[in-house]
Amino acid sequence: MKKFDISQDPHRRYNPLLEEWVLVSPHRSKRPWQGQNETIALDTLPELDKNCYLCPGNSRANGAVNPLYEGPFVFENDFAALKTEELSFLETQTESFFKAQPERGISRVVCFSPKHNLTLPEMSLEAIAAIIRAWQQEYANLGNIDYIQHVQIFENKGSVMGCSNPHPHGQIWAQSSLPTQVQKTHASLTSYFKTKGSNLLQDYLKQELLLDQRIVMQTDHFVALVPFWAIWPYETMVISKRHLTTITEFTADEVTDFALLLQHLTIKYDNLFETSFPYSSGIHQAPTDGLAHPEWQFHMHFYPPLLRSATVKKFMVGYEMLGESQRDITPERSAQILKEQSIIHYKQQ
Amino acid sequence: MKKFDISQDPHRRYNPLLEEWVLVSPHRSKRPWQGQNETIALDTLPELDKNCYLCPGNSRANGAVNPLYEGPFVFENDFAALKTEELSFLETQTESFFKAQPERGISRVVCFSPKHNLTLPEMSLEAIAAIIRAWQQEYANLGNIDYIQHVQIFENKGSVMGCSNPHPHGQIWAQSSLPTQVQKTHASLTSYFKTKGSNLLQDYLKQELLLDQRIVMQTDHFVALVPFWAIWPYETMVISKRHLTTITEFTADEVTDFALLLQHLTIKYDNLFETSFPYSSGIHQAPTDGLAHPEWQFHMHFYPPLLRSATVKKFMVGYEMLGESQRDITPERSAQILKEQSIIHYKQQ
Ligand SMILES: O=P(O)(O)O[C@H]1O[C@H](CO)[C@@H](O)[C@H](O)[C@H]1O
Ligand SMILES: O=P(O)(O)O[C@H]1O[C@H](CO)[C@@H](O)[C@H](O)[C@H]1O
Repeated sequence: MKKFDISQDPHRRYNPLLEEWVLVSPHRSKRPWQGQNETIALDTLPELDKNCYLCPGNSRANGAVNPLYEGPFVFENDFAALKTEELSFLETQTESFFKAQPERGISRVVCFSPKHNLTLPEMSLEAIAAIIRAWQQEYANLGNIDYIQHVQIFENKGSVMGCSNPHPHGQIWAQSSLPTQVQKTHASLTSYFKTKGSNLLQDYLKQELLLDQRIVMQTDHFVALVPFWAIWPYETMVISKRHLTTITEFTADEVTDFALLLQHLTIKYDNLFETSFPYSSGIHQAPTDGLAHPEWQFHMHFYPPLLRSATVKKFMVGYEMLGESQRDITPERSAQILKEQSIIHYKQQ
Repeated sequence: MKKFDISQDPHRRYNPLLEEWVLVSPHRSKRPWQGQNETIALDTLPELDKNCYLCPGNSRANGAVNPLYEGPFVFENDFAALKTEELSFLETQTESFFKAQPERGISRVVCFSPKHNLTLPEMSLEAIAAIIRAWQQEYANLGNIDYIQHVQIFENKGSVMGCSNPHPHGQIWAQSSLPTQVQKTHASLTSYFKTKGSNLLQDYLKQELLLDQRIVMQTDHFVALVPFWAIWPYETMVISKRHLTTITEFTADEVTDFALLLQHLTIKYDNLFETSFPYSSGIHQAPTDGLAHPEWQFHMHFYPPLLRSATVKKFMVGYEMLGESQRDITPERSAQILKEQSIIHYKQQ
């Protein structure tokens, strides 16, 4: 019988954070593509767009006028998915098929820059550090509100990721429950901590650094790697080398260093297919319930959809929706490819 | 304090099959859309396309020539994600962060019709019944192979769902493990059956029929409804009224009746935005491990991405990937809208 070769043969890998598997089909990357191609916005954007509701000085849907901001600018989302109002509610039986609960929360928008056409990989280190400080402040302030248990900081970049405005911005959804994915991660981190007395992601990071097969890059304080169980072709996870449970624990040094990591990682992404690389990214960190969370470890996920080129993405559809996430290229190969990308942006080369 | 109103206020609903929550934001459906629009293929397709590798008489990537088939035509996928080969494998420690296992399987393609331009909603009842019989045969044959534990029948329809060829077809991935989503469903059905001694989905269906708030349509033997916990705007689930664990248990009558349901449901979908409605659909049924599975109930999921029109879809991105699935329109409203759609295809009206 032929011996199983993880770099060549179909297999499944286990994600210990979500307790899910991913199907890996390394041999399938040679499949020709005759399906949908994404359109790339090729027109150069202006630095200021009169019709953009995020640009400084412009007015928004609700009539508010944006200030002439120069650094990051944070405001309440005009079309928030959550509302702050407290509602009275009689709990239904837990046994029922119709289990529902009201959810309170706050949605905020974080403009990364006053410049309509400037994304993370082209920003200065100082500008990125200012965004990280804004995230720190938002996490602290929102987390301090008594009914807020969780603060989700994220960015949808690119129209293919549902981003409705190219102006560089992210969002923050703070709410009264732990959302599903975070609840799962929380359960895994907690059970690992109880059994081992140590932190799952810190232990994982140590092993990844030893093996050095999936590390994309390192700075003094952070590591970007392709997780062993990554589902997206060029998915990465950023972990701090020091055990940190939330972004508010960063020293000034770590803020600058994290800015450097974000700058270099997103430059590598842009360089990969010489395009403004689309992704959804977001930070997972401890709940804001006022308790200590030694089981938690600050980390950031990047979920980029592109597979082979600036226009061909991976579709997570039929089999993936009904069965299990599936990938072609192995995480080791993706890490190698990202590692080889320059940290000078292709437009500057 | 204002009383919670499930039709108006933000809330979360619980999915007892996957043990996940969905965030519902009914008030948000009025949000304007300035993001990506999907392109619709408007060119009328020919009945036979010389360049299509699925049309009768044409040759495929591997040189094989398709027969001049007249009903459904099933063949092995030329770019299968799974391979049949058995591989030798030394199990790694379960404690490790690098848990992987080889996976064996078979991928097949099911052409629904010889006609390149004919999708389910425009097919005759008899033609749809023939597809159902092909599914029965495939489930039985593949399931009989000793190492196959699960047979996933699915369809990706439309380029927005990653379908690389408009020729009407679905796929079947049969494999040696239960994929993640099925494993979760299996665990929920099993634990319900152990506790209650009855079938979760049969019990759920009874309550839905009583409430009559989310029923889209019924035939003699089947019901299509929008689940209480649906995540996609117009997601539906089809359940048989009789307790059936697999498609092979259908009587001849049930085959014809299921064909009628599929025809009417997909016509309603096409009529909704007067377009060839994209979706991923698939059948969940008992594992093929040779055991009896009274806890299981045959059901079919439809996951359609469109939200407001033929060109505006719901993006499951940043918050959804990192936090939790989110929807705007309520399942009750969606069910009502689908219910109101005619069962005469808009092209025939
Ligand atoms: O096999 P196809 O149709 O080429 O490919 C499509 O369906 C597969 C199964 O859902 C997915 O893995 C692919 O990402 C998608 O493009
Ligand atoms: O809030 P936006 O950017 O308009 O909307 C985008 O991000 C949200 C949060 O991930 C999603 O719910 C929307 O589907 C997506 O289009």
